[in-house]
Amino acid sequence: MENSRDGQVTELLRKLFPRTGQAFVIGVTGSPGSGKSTLVDQLAHHYKDSETKVGIVLVDPTSPFSGGAILGDRIRMQSLFTDPRVFIRSMATRGKMGGLSTAVDEALMVLDAAGYGTLIVETVGVGQDEVDIVKTAHMTLVVLVPGMGDDIQTMKAGIMEIGDIFVINKADRDGINRTERELEALLSLSSREDGWEPPIVKTVATQGEGILELVEGIEKYRDLLSEPQSKKRREVPWFRERLVEKLRDHLTRDLLERIPEEELDRYAEKMMTRELDPYTIMDRLLKNLDR
Amino acid sequence: MENSRDGQVTELLRKLFPRTGQAFVIGVTGSPGSGKSTLVDQLAHHYKDSETKVGIVLVDPTSPFSGGAILGDRIRMQSLFTDPRVFIRSMATRGKMGGLSTAVDEALMVLDAAGYGTLIVETVGVGQDEVDIVKTAHMTLVVLVPGMGDDIQTMKAGIMEIGDIFVINKADRDGINRTERELEALLSLSSREDGWEPPIVKTVATQGEGILELVEGIEKYRDLLSEPQSKKRREVPWFRERLVEKLRDHLTRDLLERIPEEELDRYAEKMMTRELDPYTIMDRLLKNLDR
Repeated sequence: MENSRDGQVTELLRKLFPRTGQAFVIGVTGSPGSGKSTLVDQLAHHYKDSETKVGIVLVDPTSPFSGGAILGDRIRMQSLFTDPRVFIRSMATRGKMGGLSTAVDEALMVLDAAGYGTLIVETVGVGQDEVDIVKTAHMTLVVLVPGMGDDIQTMKAGIMEIGDIFVINKADRDGINRTERELEALLSLSSREDGWEPPIVKTVATQGEGILELVEGIEKYRDLLSEPQSKKRREVPWFRERLVEKLRDHLTRDLLERIPEEELDRYAEKMMTRELDPYTIMDRLLKNLDR
Repeated sequence: MENSRDGQVTELLRKLFPRTGQAFVIGVTGSPGSGKSTLVDQLAHHYKDSETKVGIVLVDPTSPFSGGAILGDRIRMQSLFTDPRVFIRSMATRGKMGGLSTAVDEALMVLDAAGYGTLIVETVGVGQDEVDIVKTAHMTLVVLVPGMGDDIQTMKAGIMEIGDIFVINKADRDGINRTERELEALLSLSSREDGWEPPIVKTVATQGEGILELVEGIEKYRDLLSEPQSKKRREVPWFRERLVEKLRDHLTRDLLERIPEEELDRYAEKMMTRELDPYTIMDRLLKNLDR
């Protein structure tokens, strides 16, 4: 049984759901210090002027290595905080159930239903959590900076899959040419099923340079996605993954509500003394719960 | 129902469990490029000579931003690969169920039962996944390098909780004094319940400098942990968390085995067209499964 607050939230989301599906969701990720926030700020300014309202979800999975960075970064965004066409929501909580991407998903759903036409999800840091989150977006911008040197090699492994556009920000810095060449070389090694060739866009976000070119790239990809065939090929697995995630969250919450805290502690103590192994305990708990 | 391979693994772990609890598990984390692997290499050499066998678990949650780094880092460890007193296991797979920390936990259990007295878990990258993993260790070394500048401020938020010893590696580099002062200032702000004051140890891992001092710090903390009171205070919540994790993994696997792939796809398509919302689908699926 869900508690009543959860029940109310679910009822709300259930009612909102048919009104979702209009917004375009842009994920932005990249190393700390790459200027993601300034770039998001610029994109938000562009979109709020050119069409519907803009929603921004800032995600920080309270990693000990990124936690403190938020404030400084986010202060730069303050020009947007008072603009009625822009809604900014910072999400830092990570539940014990690991439901952060579900929480982000729900926030996006609410903004979508409320008529925000462009949604931007920015993650701090570069862990698996962040990747899971940007996967919930329609497209992902990966932000780099010149002079990363070996770091580009380091990024090699999985970066091809998640970047739909690669932004080299702070492009007025030394090393821009080398970084661009290295990135081009890496991108040339891979080809995508959907035929899209991820462009490299150079920006100086603090000066607004390159933003229009970036927007152009975003719109091109958006057009590609809106073709019925690619929409279905992309969205069915996407929704399936969301569904499985929601089921997992639900089951875990449900389970923990049905096992008293003290019982868990008692079992934990028996594990500590090696009196019982975790598998035997699981068998007992699951049997008691009539599963 | 679990499939037979899982069942066999569970049976094995069930039998091994009573023989676990002897090993001391050291977690090592820190930014990429901080020289963690060299440090782990040095620690492994020390422990294999001084007492029982050493097990090393190298964890890389296949983050797109760290994936490629493994090889280079790990090559440096090759002197250990052929040593019978050292067992090295690299874990890069991250299951769809997010069970990486469970997998690491199980690998540690096997090594523990097999008589490896010192276990070292090294993570690549610094995301939430890594933090979850180092939490499964008895103690955690956080590795920094001089000249991180603002990065130390950035690390501020959660670092106090997870570091039991702070290692400034590459201590022969410029900026060591400033880094040390900043770190000291941060550490002075916090006090721990267990009365432990996390020391700062300076090392040049490539030269073996500072390793003995680091080992001394590790052993001091190990003594503290072995007091019966602090053992219980620490281990009961630890085992409870492991138990909940295992239950979650089990429920999710169980669920996915009972819902045909095609049924999930069908529902995902109904979500895409907004014919059904995810909450109604969940109600149906859970009802069908007799929950």
